[in-house]
Amino acid sequence: MIDLQRDGDVYVLRYDAGENRFSPDFLGAVEGALDGVAKNDGPGALVTVGTGKFYSNGLDLDWLGANQDKFEEYLRRVHGLFARVLELPMPTVAALNGHAFAGGGMLALCHDHAVMRTDRGYFCLPEVDLGMSFTPGMNLLIKERLPRATAHEAVLTGRRYTAEQALRAGIVQRTAAEDEVLPAAVELAASLAGKNGGTVAKIRADLYRPVLDALHGPALS
Amino acid sequence: MIDLQRDGDVYVLRYDAGENRFSPDFLGAVEGALDGVAKNDGPGALVTVGTGKFYSNGLDLDWLGANQDKFEEYLRRVHGLFARVLELPMPTVAALNGHAFAGGGMLALCHDHAVMRTDRGYFCLPEVDLGMSFTPGMNLLIKERLPRATAHEAVLTGRRYTAEQALRAGIVQRTAAEDEVLPAAVELAASLAGKNGGTVAKIRADLYRPVLDALHGPALS
Amino acid sequence: MIDLQRDGDVYVLRYDAGENRFSPDFLGAVEGALDGVAKNDGPGALVTVGTGKFYSNGLDLDWLGANQDKFEEYLRRVHGLFARVLELPMPTVAALNGHAFAGGGMLALCHDHAVMRTDRGYFCLPEVDLGMSFTPGMNLLIKERLPRATAHEAVLTGRRYTAEQALRAGIVQRTAAEDEVLPAAVELAASLAGKNGGTVAKIRADLYRPVLDALHGPALS
Repeated sequence: MIDLQRDGDVYVLRYDAGENRFSPDFLGAVEGALDGVAKNDGPGALVTVGTGKFYSNGLDLDWLGANQDKFEEYLRRVHGLFARVLELPMPTVAALNGHAFAGGGMLALCHDHAVMRTDRGYFCLPEVDLGMSFTPGMNLLIKERLPRATAHEAVLTGRRYTAEQALRAGIVQRTAAEDEVLPAAVELAASLAGKNGGTVAKIRADLYRPVLDALHGPALS
Repeated sequence: MIDLQRDGDVYVLRYDAGENRFSPDFLGAVEGALDGVAKNDGPGALVTVGTGKFYSNGLDLDWLGANQDKFEEYLRRVHGLFARVLELPMPTVAALNGHAFAGGGMLALCHDHAVMRTDRGYFCLPEVDLGMSFTPGMNLLIKERLPRATAHEAVLTGRRYTAEQALRAGIVQRTAAEDEVLPAAVELAASLAGKNGGTVAKIRADLYRPVLDALHGPALS
Repeated sequence: MIDLQRDGDVYVLRYDAGENRFSPDFLGAVEGALDGVAKNDGPGALVTVGTGKFYSNGLDLDWLGANQDKFEEYLRRVHGLFARVLELPMPTVAALNGHAFAGGGMLALCHDHAVMRTDRGYFCLPEVDLGMSFTPGMNLLIKERLPRATAHEAVLTGRRYTAEQALRAGIVQRTAAEDEVLPAAVELAASLAGKNGGTVAKIRADLYRPVLDALHGPALS
């Protein structure tokens, strides 16, 4: 489901569940891993990465379809995952080895930085083409984390961004060939791992206070 | 005054009143047209365009000068126009065939996308040079819709942006020669017309909630 | 400590106290100068500039260390300085002749525009590397005044921006060689000096209302 390794000061959390959709089991595994990582003392940084063609495709729509009575509870748990990453007391880097769609794209946005694979894979918020909209927490995350023009285009057109397009749009900060995505993310994370975790968490929480308030608030408007 | 045509799935609303200033008659005609367009069922998108040298020069200062007792009521109606476009249940594109000044520039910003003519015409918010300031709704529209640096420069310097400058500043998304502005806008609109109107309206309203709240609130601070 | 001259319509306020840290004496001198400038009637604009290698290094940490009981009162006074510049009834330009660090960088952000020296000096918000965070007023100033991606990177990484990097990141609007920084800033200021001061102040205060509210509110969260 997941795999957590340490490479020097850098924790590498690999999602290893196909499309890496947020099934309850997947969420439980990632929550547990992040809770452990958050206890880190001293230098540290987190890299998350997927497997194969997928970083993450977000919400587990199959599970949701079979558990519609748990929709709000489920969304609260997804919000909790986003908040956990945003509140992690260390620098964070998403290594986008493949598709980051919908909730998977939003999870990537919760990281401080992102490195994206050049030859394959898209960043995409396709909700507008699925007849879906965004929860208050998701809406604020996208709006506060992305350049205005990018947030506007991403949610209103459902554009699929290649790595080069995502770099120009300010969605990711670096691009790399398939084999270099994880090493580049780890290198970036290692360069930031010396920063005081508590200070990073405080500055990040202040910067994204409205997002965190919404993520910790009601899941639906 | 105005002309409303349909080109495939795309409604083309042409303002045809010279400078296309927001006279009560102009507002009434546009309100009626938009109310009709909003009832569209199925695929649809809106393009607005002006005539000759002008997209729109905004507030009708002559009429306002002769009707100063109706200032606040008039501003509420202009706010209502902006909100109507921002809430339209379909993708929207402004075809900037010519000058988009002051309120005319803000009306352009209410659209999802804009295509601007390259050889002639400016986007300009000249209020700072007219001794005017912005209503709370206008201020938030400019601030939330434009990249930060562009909003700052536009309102504090009153800069006149050519099409190329407006593209670089994130005010418009495409530029075209005079004859190509409307076709390019229609082509863009047509490519988006298949999206579900209710979904577009919900996502857009969530994204611009503070703007819409201000536009629906008191016209003056 | 400081020197205030007038060059045509442009007030040139030079900080002349080494690193130009915000000692109580420095603050008193600048407050007095700005109070005088604010009384200007007719065309006017302000340029601020430092001396030698420094624009300003911000908070006077030595003085603070010896006066820890006055921490909150001191921060309120620094907030007051930021608000004074943001509320000045005329266009303002920071001539970054050298380092603009921490509070000195934030002071630069309070100006409408900035010109930065190319061969030497950095813009840097190093708080994350000092175990410090930002007050609510400082946090909002950085967040509302800079492009989103720049605010994010600046506070979470403590990156030192050269003039060229600061230009690309939207922190400054022009760059110039050492001898040309002040002349370029004065030229820019002079080109804007004809704008009505009251109008400029109103538009700017509306645009940065949340920042000003925070700067005038409690210094600590």
